Amino acid sequence: MNILITSGGTSEKIDQVRSITNHSTGQLGKMIAERFLDAGFPVTLVTSPTAVRPKKHPLLTTFLTANVAELQLVLKEQTTKHQVLIHAMAVSDYSPIYMTGFEAIKGASNLEQFLHCANQESKISSDDDYQVLFLKKNPKLISLVKIWNPEIRLIGFKLLVDVAQDQLLSVARASLEKNQAEIIVANDLRDIQDGKHRAYLISEQDVQVAETKAEIAQKIYNYIINKG
Amino acid sequence: MNILITSGGTSEKIDQVRSITNHSTGQLGKMIAERFLDAGFPVTLVTSPTAVRPKKHPLLTTFLTANVAELQLVLKEQTTKHQVLIHAMAVSDYSPIYMTGFEAIKGASNLEQFLHCANQESKISSDDDYQVLFLKKNPKLISLVKIWNPEIRLIGFKLLVDVAQDQLLSVARASLEKNQAEIIVANDLRDIQDGKHRAYLISEQDVQVAETKAEIAQKIYNYIINKG
Repeated sequence: MNILITSGGTSEKIDQVRSITNHSTGQLGKMIAERFLDAGFPVTLVTSPTAVRPKKHPLLTTFLTANVAELQLVLKEQTTKHQVLIHAMAVSDYSPIYMTGFEAIKGASNLEQFLHCANQESKISSDDDYQVLFLKKNPKLISLVKIWNPEIRLIGFKLLVDVAQDQLLSVARASLEKNQAEIIVANDLRDIQDGKHRAYLISEQDVQVAETKAEIAQKIYNYIINKG
Repeated sequence: MNILITSGGTSEKIDQVRSITNHSTGQLGKMIAERFLDAGFPVTLVTSPTAVRPKKHPLLTTFLTANVAELQLVLKEQTTKHQVLIHAMAVSDYSPIYMTGFEAIKGASNLEQFLHCANQESKISSDDDYQVLFLKKNPKLISLVKIWNPEIRLIGFKLLVDVAQDQLLSVARASLEKNQAEIIVANDLRDIQDGKHRAYLISEQDVQVAETKAEIAQKIYNYIINKG
């Protein structure tokens, strides 16, 4: 059984010096990878350049991807070669299209035009008091996984911030169904601190609670092995 | 002589999971710090959490700052306690004010209202096909240094991307004068790669060229010692 894991966060360039970054240390993905490596399974880890990684291991293959477009290319190819995908990377929902001064859009008769602009300069000028950045939605890669490989077993993640538990579980259940995942690991950023990491592993059958990253990794491992 | 150095890059939060980040490894600031530490000078390094740092050293004090507001607080206090500031940090020119769906602004009669909005939610919804982010200009900290401490000796940096050398030098000279700096280290991102880092050290007297980070650090050191 080959395990494909994504970890870390993506970063979408505004220009050559600025990006919109989704912060994620990669710590959880690293621990999940180590759990499967320790048990002798080949692991492919797709992660971002600044994320933490497991030590070199003969069963570990690593790909580095900076942004959603790069991630999509690698995932599309790799999902067909793996039996399990654990998709823990924090993926940017939006990518920059165009940045300009507020004065330029204030008087514009048609704002749609800016959705079709692109910055020609390599570093956007900082003369304006206010700027406006237009962004477009990225493809939801998790929703493409089963199109690329209908047979792959999919573990997804859903991170919300400061919401009621009911809402978190309900959003995760919707993702479970929509993306044909076996588990969605639902967590709230509020519950990730001081070495703790509370998460709800939601499957069609039940909800399991984990309180640390190590426990999340172990429960995912148990699930994959026992239901495999 | 106490040396204050900034390095790394700032990161301005859009919400609890996304930021606009100015990328900088902190490598140059680290090398400049090491050059002065090696020579026995006390160094205070103000850097970002993910930047590389010198090894622990009895003469080294480190402050971590994530964003421009934190950097401003630390710099304002520290400039009065140091004789030299080498300001190598990549500082965000703009900070997010408000992010919303494109549909919400498309029909608005007055776009100025959005400059006074703030996101209440901790993670901004990703339902819209297009989003718009309004940003405001940050204070230029380099221009405040001599107000905080008129006696401090100031080394500033100017990074442009893919411009003619004439333009780079002319922008750097304007910064030299405006900010009452002794040197502006002018560099073009195009010339920073594969272990090379070309920079022009521009003072009122002359222009010196360096080709590597080590050379930049050495030339700054020589200048501070010889003109001190």
